[in-house]
Amino acid sequence: MAQPTKIVLSEADAPTHWYNINADLPTFGIDLPSVRHPMTKENITPDDLGALFPPALIEQEMSTEREIEIPERVQEVYRLWRPTPLYRARAWEKALDTPAKIYYKYEGVSPTGSHKPNTAVPQAYYNAEAGTKRITTETGAGQWGSALSFACQMFDVACDVYMVRVSYEQKPYRRILMETWDATVTPSPSDTTDAGRRVLERTPETTGSLGIAISEAVERAASEDTTRYALGSVLNHVLLHQTVIGQETIKQLELFGADYPDVVVGCTGGGSNFGGFAFPFLGDNPHEQPRSRFVAVEPKATPTLTRGRYTYDYGDTAGLTPLVKMHTLGHDFVPPPIHSGGLRYHGMSPQISALVEAGIIEARSAGQLAIFKSNQQFARAEGILPAPEAGHAVWGAEQEALAAKEAGEPRTIVFNLCGHGNFDLSAYDDYMNGRLEDYEMDDREMDAALEAVPAVE
Amino acid sequence: MAQPTKIVLSEADAPTHWYNINADLPTFGIDLPSVRHPMTKENITPDDLGALFPPALIEQEMSTEREIEIPERVQEVYRLWRPTPLYRARAWEKALDTPAKIYYKYEGVSPTGSHKPNTAVPQAYYNAEAGTKRITTETGAGQWGSALSFACQMFDVACDVYMVRVSYEQKPYRRILMETWDATVTPSPSDTTDAGRRVLERTPETTGSLGIAISEAVERAASEDTTRYALGSVLNHVLLHQTVIGQETIKQLELFGADYPDVVVGCTGGGSNFGGFAFPFLGDNPHEQPRSRFVAVEPKATPTLTRGRYTYDYGDTAGLTPLVKMHTLGHDFVPPPIHSGGLRYHGMSPQISALVEAGIIEARSAGQLAIFKSNQQFARAEGILPAPEAGHAVWGAEQEALAAKEAGEPRTIVFNLCGHGNFDLSAYDDYMNGRLEDYEMDDREMDAALEAVPAVE
Repeated sequence: MAQPTKIVLSEADAPTHWYNINADLPTFGIDLPSVRHPMTKENITPDDLGALFPPALIEQEMSTEREIEIPERVQEVYRLWRPTPLYRARAWEKALDTPAKIYYKYEGVSPTGSHKPNTAVPQAYYNAEAGTKRITTETGAGQWGSALSFACQMFDVACDVYMVRVSYEQKPYRRILMETWDATVTPSPSDTTDAGRRVLERTPETTGSLGIAISEAVERAASEDTTRYALGSVLNHVLLHQTVIGQETIKQLELFGADYPDVVVGCTGGGSNFGGFAFPFLGDNPHEQPRSRFVAVEPKATPTLTRGRYTYDYGDTAGLTPLVKMHTLGHDFVPPPIHSGGLRYHGMSPQISALVEAGIIEARSAGQLAIFKSNQQFARAEGILPAPEAGHAVWGAEQEALAAKEAGEPRTIVFNLCGHGNFDLSAYDDYMNGRLEDYEMDDREMDAALEAVPAVE
Repeated sequence: MAQPTKIVLSEADAPTHWYNINADLPTFGIDLPSVRHPMTKENITPDDLGALFPPALIEQEMSTEREIEIPERVQEVYRLWRPTPLYRARAWEKALDTPAKIYYKYEGVSPTGSHKPNTAVPQAYYNAEAGTKRITTETGAGQWGSALSFACQMFDVACDVYMVRVSYEQKPYRRILMETWDATVTPSPSDTTDAGRRVLERTPETTGSLGIAISEAVERAASEDTTRYALGSVLNHVLLHQTVIGQETIKQLELFGADYPDVVVGCTGGGSNFGGFAFPFLGDNPHEQPRSRFVAVEPKATPTLTRGRYTYDYGDTAGLTPLVKMHTLGHDFVPPPIHSGGLRYHGMSPQISALVEAGIIEARSAGQLAIFKSNQQFARAEGILPAPEAGHAVWGAEQEALAAKEAGEPRTIVFNLCGHGNFDLSAYDDYMNGRLEDYEMDDREMDAALEAVPAVE
């Protein structure tokens, strides 16, 4: 028997708990800033969130317990695709001519092709338990919307997705996927909400934005009794649910007989993939002096961690969501039309922001031409076509592998390939035919975008 | 620990040999008719096939050895996605309210989303070993073309795909996938071959057909020294390579503690999925009195097994391929535009045809409206959206589950879900919006299509 190509855990070895980084933040010297009410700017209470989220999720959002049990019914749905495989990228190592050993976790085997169902499933479950009849959400390119549609279908909850109009019109495939799972998909801005109608009156030709779609979904949830809202990233309970990824990876590396990773790499938009992958390694490392480096990769076009300001800001355009202290580009920042739709967000998980400020996580950025170049080489070696979002981690791992070569060191690199690119083929077509361009904001644009950030003590 | 949802074998438990049904056909009372030369109509020799296939594949095509070793290098590439999972469809059983226990093998986890790479990889490998520099092939919707592009990339062989023009123009996604793996994709008919030019002169506006594309690919291979041809179904070596599916399934059913299957269900176009799944069960059953029933499901629109004639016919439109005795609709049959592109073929694997004639395999047919209805219910229960081709097996399993309910018997049903529907979302959109229709040929059309079948003693 040759060296294994991948390690797949049995269902019996799947994690039974989620890992909550909040419990360990003090050991990194971090005292997480409080979350503030959007109107009063006072510290928020569980009651303030009751119109949007069911009690169990509010409890998880604020919990400082280190481990939170995964309900059996959630584990049951996870088993439709979890545990996911961990690969040793032997062919890609050879193509890169590096002494590094590269491992990648692959979340593309989920029903919707990304890591998003890891949190969509428990969110739908806890809502169903709490009597929620309908969940609203927003989606850009559709990764999150399709994950929530799938999850709601599993628990017999209706799902209303506000989809940014330009994606609704130009990218019908994920819309159809959501409809196949019985979701209602509405192009945003729409005339179903005050927030949407106001935007349409002012700018009837608008193509929409994620910030507007969030405002519409939140307004619906806040104004209907048995309707609640779900978010696919940024919040602690969302990152918490994603920690099954990192926990499985740690076990799989052991079974591979791998060295402890020198570097852990992930892409970051709002932080759910990065947190889910990296937090269990952070919890596993000696906290005051981690053995691994942690590298978060984001697009140059939305450089939240690398060029944003660490301050309080809203999660949406209309200012309906709570204020959190995070790296932000300003809540009315309009991201350039890069293909990594899942990373086009102005804000960031407060936990990840704080860990970057503390120097525990390093942040890097890359342009999309570099990303697609890395991805194509990866696809030709490993056979899997990465989603452009996931491709940021591929690029990051490649940089680390080349650095290991430069240093002549057989470093161990592990990254999360959080989704496949089967719904992104037109982006690859654009790349191969020279129709892609890079975007980078100049300082004046950056300053202008940050002007709208509210002042909070 | 709850009952498992799926069984995933470790790489160490993967099959090391392919199973060759030819060795066992005599025990079913079958003496397989010889293959004939397209011009002389005499029995074909290995030399006759040398211009098209490398020696190892010709040997496998004609072999009567029961087990053929899988080369280590092929096993290595298989490990990128194999072994694939076997699921117990608990949620779907509940939705169908059946006492049946339904298991499904899932081949959609491969890099191209179907079972096709199982044979593309060894075909590319044996060609590379034999010094082939370029492989030509045809593809309809693109499942086979993308599998061969992926496989050729792994072994550094160039890949030229003739893609039926209507698919090339209307379904760009799989074309882009092939190009990402560095294949050259040419819409067929083209001006790169005599066969293509002749068709274009006669009918410049033609949308093309699989039969014409095969003729183009075969002509290129026959006329270029280091170019050979690859076929994705019908031939014995192709079905042989697919038997990893059924072998894994047998082991996984044992690990599930399942009863021996009462019925084994698969879809059939040219037979590679059905053969790969069902043949190992046939080999495993007592041959003269199999314990399992075997059900092959095909589209009503291309009713090869259920309404075709069992006779000698060509594999392509121009009559360049050998003549084989099989169920056929006539080699210039033009299939209706159903969405199951992978099943739109006039012929059938000679082994499957002979087993149907011998009464060992039962054949059924379904219209595409019934298929999509079953598939949507399956997707809502199990979370996986079936490719329309694979959906024929879903429909077949559903019929068996309903029959078990009618009989009040807890029968064990196993089927192969040979691919996901992520590239078929526009078909689901058509279904959900009432734009799909059924096609069924009347007897006069059938008779007309069969008139072109050549007379062979």
